[in-house]
Amino acid sequence: METARLVAAHPAFTLAAAVSDKWAGTLVGDQLPVAGVAAAVRVAKQAEAPALFAGLDLVFLCTPAEVSLALAPLALEAGCRVVDVSGAFRLAADLYPRWYGFPHPQRELLARACYSMPEAGASGDLRAARLVANPGCFATASTLAALALLRGGVIEPGGIVIDAKSGTTGAGKKASEDFSFSEIDGDFHAYRVLRHQHTPEIERALALAGHDAGKVTFTAHLLPVRRGILATVYGRLRPGKTGADAAAAVASFVAGKPFLRAVAPQAVRLHPVIGTNRVLLGADADPERGVAIAFAAIDNLVKGAAGQAVQNANLMLGLAETTGLEGLPGSAP
Amino acid sequence: METARLVAAHPAFTLAAAVSDKWAGTLVGDQLPVAGVAAAVRVAKQAEAPALFAGLDLVFLCTPAEVSLALAPLALEAGCRVVDVSGAFRLAADLYPRWYGFPHPQRELLARACYSMPEAGASGDLRAARLVANPGCFATASTLAALALLRGGVIEPGGIVIDAKSGTTGAGKKASEDFSFSEIDGDFHAYRVLRHQHTPEIERALALAGHDAGKVTFTAHLLPVRRGILATVYGRLRPGKTGADAAAAVASFVAGKPFLRAVAPQAVRLHPVIGTNRVLLGADADPERGVAIAFAAIDNLVKGAAGQAVQNANLMLGLAETTGLEGLPGSAP
Amino acid sequence: METARLVAAHPAFTLAAAVSDKWAGTLVGDQLPVAGVAAAVRVAKQAEAPALFAGLDLVFLCTPAEVSLALAPLALEAGCRVVDVSGAFRLAADLYPRWYGFPHPQRELLARACYSMPEAGASGDLRAARLVANPGCFATASTLAALALLRGGVIEPGGIVIDAKSGTTGAGKKASEDFSFSEIDGDFHAYRVLRHQHTPEIERALALAGHDAGKVTFTAHLLPVRRGILATVYGRLRPGKTGADAAAAVASFVAGKPFLRAVAPQAVRLHPVIGTNRVLLGADADPERGVAIAFAAIDNLVKGAAGQAVQNANLMLGLAETTGLEGLPGSAP
Amino acid sequence: METARLVAAHPAFTLAAAVSDKWAGTLVGDQLPVAGVAAAVRVAKQAEAPALFAGLDLVFLCTPAEVSLALAPLALEAGCRVVDVSGAFRLAADLYPRWYGFPHPQRELLARACYSMPEAGASGDLRAARLVANPGCFATASTLAALALLRGGVIEPGGIVIDAKSGTTGAGKKASEDFSFSEIDGDFHAYRVLRHQHTPEIERALALAGHDAGKVTFTAHLLPVRRGILATVYGRLRPGKTGADAAAAVASFVAGKPFLRAVAPQAVRLHPVIGTNRVLLGADADPERGVAIAFAAIDNLVKGAAGQAVQNANLMLGLAETTGLEGLPGSAP
Repeated sequence: METARLVAAHPAFTLAAAVSDKWAGTLVGDQLPVAGVAAAVRVAKQAEAPALFAGLDLVFLCTPAEVSLALAPLALEAGCRVVDVSGAFRLAADLYPRWYGFPHPQRELLARACYSMPEAGASGDLRAARLVANPGCFATASTLAALALLRGGVIEPGGIVIDAKSGTTGAGKKASEDFSFSEIDGDFHAYRVLRHQHTPEIERALALAGHDAGKVTFTAHLLPVRRGILATVYGRLRPGKTGADAAAAVASFVAGKPFLRAVAPQAVRLHPVIGTNRVLLGADADPERGVAIAFAAIDNLVKGAAGQAVQNANLMLGLAETTGLEGLPGSAP
Repeated sequence: METARLVAAHPAFTLAAAVSDKWAGTLVGDQLPVAGVAAAVRVAKQAEAPALFAGLDLVFLCTPAEVSLALAPLALEAGCRVVDVSGAFRLAADLYPRWYGFPHPQRELLARACYSMPEAGASGDLRAARLVANPGCFATASTLAALALLRGGVIEPGGIVIDAKSGTTGAGKKASEDFSFSEIDGDFHAYRVLRHQHTPEIERALALAGHDAGKVTFTAHLLPVRRGILATVYGRLRPGKTGADAAAAVASFVAGKPFLRAVAPQAVRLHPVIGTNRVLLGADADPERGVAIAFAAIDNLVKGAAGQAVQNANLMLGLAETTGLEGLPGSAP
Repeated sequence: METARLVAAHPAFTLAAAVSDKWAGTLVGDQLPVAGVAAAVRVAKQAEAPALFAGLDLVFLCTPAEVSLALAPLALEAGCRVVDVSGAFRLAADLYPRWYGFPHPQRELLARACYSMPEAGASGDLRAARLVANPGCFATASTLAALALLRGGVIEPGGIVIDAKSGTTGAGKKASEDFSFSEIDGDFHAYRVLRHQHTPEIERALALAGHDAGKVTFTAHLLPVRRGILATVYGRLRPGKTGADAAAAVASFVAGKPFLRAVAPQAVRLHPVIGTNRVLLGADADPERGVAIAFAAIDNLVKGAAGQAVQNANLMLGLAETTGLEGLPGSAP
Repeated sequence: METARLVAAHPAFTLAAAVSDKWAGTLVGDQLPVAGVAAAVRVAKQAEAPALFAGLDLVFLCTPAEVSLALAPLALEAGCRVVDVSGAFRLAADLYPRWYGFPHPQRELLARACYSMPEAGASGDLRAARLVANPGCFATASTLAALALLRGGVIEPGGIVIDAKSGTTGAGKKASEDFSFSEIDGDFHAYRVLRHQHTPEIERALALAGHDAGKVTFTAHLLPVRRGILATVYGRLRPGKTGADAAAAVASFVAGKPFLRAVAPQAVRLHPVIGTNRVLLGADADPERGVAIAFAAIDNLVKGAAGQAVQNANLMLGLAETTGLEGLPGSAP
């Protein structure tokens, strides 16, 4: 939904096809507040997707990993470039059994996929890439907060601890008692403790950004909000470094990166980023305790998924990375 | 409110007086769903408190620290024993300027106060204590989770990181735009980063429990829920220890402690503890990352305040610690 | 869950058996914060229910209507008295096809069932009844608000409009996308418009209370809260009546009814009734517009289900109706 | 905030000045996710407003009624046209003492003000109007739902009952315990019962639309959501009319009105309208009960305030009414 909305409003893209079993047969304009030609696009069934690929320049796969694994080769054969929003092409092949629960069935394709988090780094040349793996939502927030401290030389690379909290849309639109309003409202808890698949992705993204931090500790919690992620990142303060150094590292990190903003630690919050591709970052340190803390806030559905996918597509196509992503509304009030 | 409710229902206590400027002149039964003699107690103004102390056995001070500092000496002079729920008597005197923002004005009284977290330890003899400092809400959840790992020898004492999240009632009933529904619903952020006054209290409580862990890192976040605290505690795994050791440490720690329950890490959540004096605890570890994680969930207003105050009062008076605290409803559904 | 909790804490009842396919094999004390013998009761499967009926004095059927229709005859044959919390025995047989979607399969049993809303009226002699139909949640709040105005002679019997709003637990614990947190948080809408099965039940309850109001208009809406119902009832003001008359009618109606409280209209709200069997009632009128408005608030799971079931059981057994239902906590803060 | 955001993104408007005591001295781009020249506008203090009016074509007054009463004459004298979003110019002068609590101090100006709800009607010629009174949020939703039924001849004009529910931003950004998260989350209640100032405004708007409905009954309730209003409107069904007639009346009413959409009654909900200027409408009827029900959903801050103000400004200036108001995002998911 979010990707279709962003593509429909993008000045350089035309929404040519849309696929959803749930909405097959309706028009995009029946489901989303979009105007123009996008509104008149008829939603097709997933089984029709391969037949629609011919003639498209770019395909966004906003599908579960197993569906992406099936569709990506077909889209590439049809001559499309692909941005995959699932976890199907994010990790080295040998990590899939442990973290995703299956051996990777497309190892050759995986080897050619380009993982890209624009403000951190990429595993290949985005301009030339045919298949781009878009980062996960937790990985995006966690990596950017940790990277700000690492780039600034504020923390040691080892022993990073990430305590992350996400709204319920991070889990997709599932019908389950666990995600019912009666269960989630007023509650809070961790999930997939020490087994979350974004753990090795954060490690990889930091290494691709030139700051191999070894093994990181990552914990996901479920917030009783619909949208947004806040990641709290703890690192071991390097000798002589202070809270001012932590804040300066964030200021330096965001410079020249249009979607990143440096604010005070307690101002890193969800409301201002909802609906936008923005990342709020803030940091502080306590020399007495030998710790630095950085916070990052994103909208899990925009910078954590659809917005970063459009950002990656912009870069693949040689457009300014902000094209179609500026002026998105934050949540008011 | 919570303390009055618990005292009213307590089989060995009689609610003899209640003080609240907001409700002065009404009956306790007008404000709270209590029955019996407690319902007919007339709420007095705070200025009347000293006159009411005479003849009481025990006074619960559920007041801001500055009010407790004024009232505690008067209650003690009147012959009452006192359980203070504020932060007025929790720390060593020299820590007050940095963490509470004022030099402690009652140093002699502070030296005689007995800090008591029943499942961890106390700074004196509770049976003889005239003034008991009841622990803070964050300190309770954080200390118990960390202590389970420390007692079990699962983690090193140094480098403990505590990422804690609280509902809005932890902040009291304030009229401020920051705590308005429009600001908090759908949002999440940290506050008092690296400056929260429960940090040194956790350090003290662990030391009193026989596990000096040095300096701990503590971060408080504000959840969009009314009640409940979840503390996520990270420690450095001792060599050879595993997730099974972490779980066993929790099981061992809760044994014989009537308010503590060991559950799986993702089952440590807010709903089951709301309205009760219970603490849910769970833990796991990742030897590859050299980390153990423990979770604790409490109701910030019960185990984090009024319930633990009654528990301390029970122990002061030689009653079973569960008296009047069993069978409290958890939040249903 | 709520019924088991209330029965476990009831001074005159002993929880002897509990049935739940979901929790079969666990102990009641594993699922609910109950103490004593109730905690040790082993939860049985529903298929085992008939075998458990022998020797019980009273059975609460907190089951869907189709299950109640199957179990009630077996429980009665086994010599138990039955309080049915479902809609299986609430209406005249000829109303079932339209409002419940099936012809009633137990017409003879239905004819013997005693519908009882204690503060309004009953269709038979509760002391002698073997099968009692407990009222629906919306019907309880709506009937009591309307009845206060009708008893006081404030409104005409015809043309009553009821606009009711319920929390999500009114729908039971279902796994559906419609009841997911992502769908319900921040949203609000009506459902089963002009087709809700509590419509004829309100008409019946008013008639049983001696105030046949003909056909009423009833609309249910879904609130983004877990518990609680607020019913707003509009009636045509009788000539010469005023807002003071409306308030006096409520004051008169609640007199002598231990669970009912008269408050100002804007003080009829959910928080104070959650967890309790209380009903808050308030009313006002506008002679210029010829309308009276009454509000009622209840906890849909207590006064709207389990609490009223225990209240009915108390009356069936000749106990005070408040037995086991006083001193239940309201939601704090 | 919302008006500034919409003006900044409007293709025919330029944000030339902005006034806010709270944000004075910062840039608009510091507070809102806007791009371009608007982002660089410096926010002025309210005391500076009169000096800023010179040279502006149009001023939006998004101020309390008393501030609008002071500023509107100054803006008009400076040659600006004015859209006032407050209640200062919405009613006949003689209604102000009862409904707003003060005698109107600008009766001559009030007589010249043009009240305009574009889909219903206006009290004058919008193209020529210098001062336009923008409708209230409740009045907008309520009037449009009632008007659909009245225009279609489905209901009698008399005896209309409106039960309306609003999110908390309808109350503005106030610091009060009543609007704290701890009070509102999980709660629901009515307010200003039979005294809400939108009551006579609805009566006026219906009369201006050519359907004098006499006195209407209106009740406002406070929802635990941030944004959105749902109005449930009950009218007396005219003889021979059916549910199909009610639905057809809505379909006919929305035809040719770009912001209005006809949906099924239970599909009239808040999520799809949040952030947009859209109105969802649906209706049904029950001939047996002699009642028709219509539902309307709007975003109280957009169609209920800033969006309708821009829509009115578009019409004042001869632009298409949808200019700058299409393609606004609905709340996803």
